Amino acid sequence: MTILGQTERLGGARERFYEWMGVLNDLKGSIRLLDWDRETAMPASGAEARARVVATLHALRHRELLRPEIRDDLAALAEATDPDGPEAAMLRLAAREIRRAERVPEALVRETSTATSHAVSVWLEARHDDFDAFAPALERLIALTREMAEAMDLGEEPYDALLDRFEPGVLTSELEPFFAALTTRLSDLAAGVDRAPPGRPFAGRSWPAATQMAVARDVAALVGFDLDSGIIALSAHPFTGSPHRGDVRFTTRFLDDDPTSNVLVTLHEAGHGLYSQGHPAEYERTLLHWSPSLGAEESQSRFWENHLGRRLAFWRAVDPILRSRFGASMGGIAPEDLHRATAVVPPSWSRMEAGQVTYDLHIALRFRLELALVRGALAVRDLPEAWSAEMEELLGVRAEGAEQGPMQDIHWAAGLIGYFPTYTLGNLYAAQLAEALEEEAGPIDGLIARGGFDEALAFMRERVHRHGSMLPTRELMRRATGRPFSADALLAHLERVAADGA
Amino acid sequence: MTILGQTERLGGARERFYEWMGVLNDLKGSIRLLDWDRETAMPASGAEARARVVATLHALRHRELLRPEIRDDLAALAEATDPDGPEAAMLRLAAREIRRAERVPEALVRETSTATSHAVSVWLEARHDDFDAFAPALERLIALTREMAEAMDLGEEPYDALLDRFEPGVLTSELEPFFAALTTRLSDLAAGVDRAPPGRPFAGRSWPAATQMAVARDVAALVGFDLDSGIIALSAHPFTGSPHRGDVRFTTRFLDDDPTSNVLVTLHEAGHGLYSQGHPAEYERTLLHWSPSLGAEESQSRFWENHLGRRLAFWRAVDPILRSRFGASMGGIAPEDLHRATAVVPPSWSRMEAGQVTYDLHIALRFRLELALVRGALAVRDLPEAWSAEMEELLGVRAEGAEQGPMQDIHWAAGLIGYFPTYTLGNLYAAQLAEALEEEAGPIDGLIARGGFDEALAFMRERVHRHGSMLPTRELMRRATGRPFSADALLAHLERVAADGA
Repeated sequence: MTILGQTERLGGARERFYEWMGVLNDLKGSIRLLDWDRETAMPASGAEARARVVATLHALRHRELLRPEIRDDLAALAEATDPDGPEAAMLRLAAREIRRAERVPEALVRETSTATSHAVSVWLEARHDDFDAFAPALERLIALTREMAEAMDLGEEPYDALLDRFEPGVLTSELEPFFAALTTRLSDLAAGVDRAPPGRPFAGRSWPAATQMAVARDVAALVGFDLDSGIIALSAHPFTGSPHRGDVRFTTRFLDDDPTSNVLVTLHEAGHGLYSQGHPAEYERTLLHWSPSLGAEESQSRFWENHLGRRLAFWRAVDPILRSRFGASMGGIAPEDLHRATAVVPPSWSRMEAGQVTYDLHIALRFRLELALVRGALAVRDLPEAWSAEMEELLGVRAEGAEQGPMQDIHWAAGLIGYFPTYTLGNLYAAQLAEALEEEAGPIDGLIARGGFDEALAFMRERVHRHGSMLPTRELMRRATGRPFSADALLAHLERVAADGA
Repeated sequence: MTILGQTERLGGARERFYEWMGVLNDLKGSIRLLDWDRETAMPASGAEARARVVATLHALRHRELLRPEIRDDLAALAEATDPDGPEAAMLRLAAREIRRAERVPEALVRETSTATSHAVSVWLEARHDDFDAFAPALERLIALTREMAEAMDLGEEPYDALLDRFEPGVLTSELEPFFAALTTRLSDLAAGVDRAPPGRPFAGRSWPAATQMAVARDVAALVGFDLDSGIIALSAHPFTGSPHRGDVRFTTRFLDDDPTSNVLVTLHEAGHGLYSQGHPAEYERTLLHWSPSLGAEESQSRFWENHLGRRLAFWRAVDPILRSRFGASMGGIAPEDLHRATAVVPPSWSRMEAGQVTYDLHIALRFRLELALVRGALAVRDLPEAWSAEMEELLGVRAEGAEQGPMQDIHWAAGLIGYFPTYTLGNLYAAQLAEALEEEAGPIDGLIARGGFDEALAFMRERVHRHGSMLPTRELMRRATGRPFSADALLAHLERVAADGA
């Protein structure tokens, strides 16, 4: 990429730029490890000090972004770099991060960080019943978040700047009509889903935790997750967190009356993990390592969970693992039983327990409400009532009490406003990727039946993983799937799921 | 501490100083967690990236120490601070850290860090047989270490600066005669120790790992370790590492043919852990949090392991735990058997497996050789031969091959030169503390028999833990024990141990 003579003219700017990116990456990796450890190992008594340590690393990263010396280097490199190459992409991402850091005063970052730690503590105490106890903390956080959004000054309205943190380039003015159209179709579909309460077909048998962990490892290995450079652990809320290359980690959780939950959670998180393991080595310690957005991340987890898993063919493939690990407990259970238990879930108040057909309605609800909160069109004290009304309208379900309402997710308490829509964007991209895979490799049922998980992984490696964050998500997905941004594939998929389960 | 009106005159210097110490602490805590995770969880494939992340945090800490803005604040505070108070102690420690950072160029720090990672990798490959493969890496590391010592320019000769990293204020010119006198006495004692190879009295019974972990938790709780704010994990080489207040961690290891090893390792590491849990809350995020030196650290681990543990009274106290956890496997085993198996160990080539009577001879050997290496009086290629000669002279033992010689420890590969003497200093202080405890609370055998582990802990909390690093180790120990720096207590203790086992 370097033209002869340029290196000297740049006077070390390139080396400094790469070292600077390396420091930014290393700080992010350290924060990831501190967070991972907090969820998987740290004693509760360490929470306060841990929050301060993490805040310090964020502040150091902020300071690093604002180092004055780096400006000249970026300018010099911009002139010397192939505008279509990876270095130009790095420079664009660097400029974006610097701009955000410049616009948000460090005092506001710290204040928000403290308000977030406080809100999470209050939420943990109050989440089972007491919205009023949580409301002041949330009010404060919404106010600070709006202040931050205004300072960032991106897009057409404050909420755009919040979206931009998780899904760069997406605008509220696109999402509103998108969700409106999606919810109309999905509410109809949801109305047709069987509302009978789910049974507990696997209760009363032995599904020991140690064996479930062995199953998680088998399932992860089955889809190509490299256990030699990865870890699977346990946490209350499953997640994937990888401190750096060569060390990719996810968690799962076990139900003691149902072995299928762990399998699907593992499949979901392994989807994230496969993506991390597929990030290109040559981008290590640059801003192109990792994924371009949470929607891109979620496209992978949901592809593996919802498009490869949650089908009869998948349960047939996993059946031998369950049989060899659980032995007698699997007596009389057929792949059809596993599939039936996980295919269609009756609508309920819970996002975490939602089935595919209703999942995006839960997201639409949260998108509408958080948008109204940020716009000032909804007061925090009116949130529970607004939640119940939306729940009735979108899902035809009654939410009883705060625990079944706005207290069910930690996201807002954790300051993650503008985050929920990325789940639905992930579903959308996952469905498009599944269609594109079928165009290339034939029906997924057949692919699974012939043991072709490696074909699916090779497809993702080639179309998505190897690009790191070289392209913005929407462009990455357009090239990967040959499809424009559209909910068609997702709706077609969900219609099939609803029909199957009817 | 603040005189009225001063606060304004200081113009925020105090707040900036405390925030700066907080950042230094948070970076150190992050490094501790990255190291902990590397030893207990990280997949091997993450080693290279992890080394870079840790190096980055070290470099950021170095940069933080050299921030020009902090100089004026330190100067302003020095005039406004009670010279006998904790803040003056913080300022002294700050000046010391800054001086070290100033004198060692960042390039040399990075070069040493890289050479260390390389040397550890080579050591891991070569440690079982191949000293020649390791020699070039060690040569390079010794050269860089000497360069660093010269740059630091502390004390009377380069080795002083290396000691100073781990045991501030100790001089080579004191240690040489000290070790010379100690080894004469200890070599005589060692000559009288029974050389019969140890039996395997507990082999052929079941000591399952899960049960050993339960025993480790019971033993830690017995001596007062707070498991609600602590973690016990497993690692190849047991260690204690605590990222911050409220989160104190140590590891143990299990032998499948001997339950006593885990008990003594736990006791040793719990000694470190109790110290960490006892650091004063008011010094959190300052330079006075944690201990003043590794010798102080080791005084605690060795006090619990060698002076409370390794006695018949201790094994009587632990016997009910072992019996309730291991059940039938303890049939026919009396506390006397547990004691006999752990009391006196025949001299051997191994430091890790050494008994109390010979342990400090292993340290004396390493001290002599590393001093000779740093002085240039010994070439790396002559190390194995010099090692064998010293081993014969000090311990009357033949070391066969590199694995039994200089390849048995990771310390030098890890750049820890000047570190070994702190083990013996820890033994010395532990013996003095045990004597002082007996003066206050009567014979330790009686204290244990009446279940008085809490008395011993209260003694340590009061005499040692609550001071943080307010005092230099030697002054801390002089006040804690009422004794001057001397090996008398250690020698008296080891003479009793040798006599018991004869």
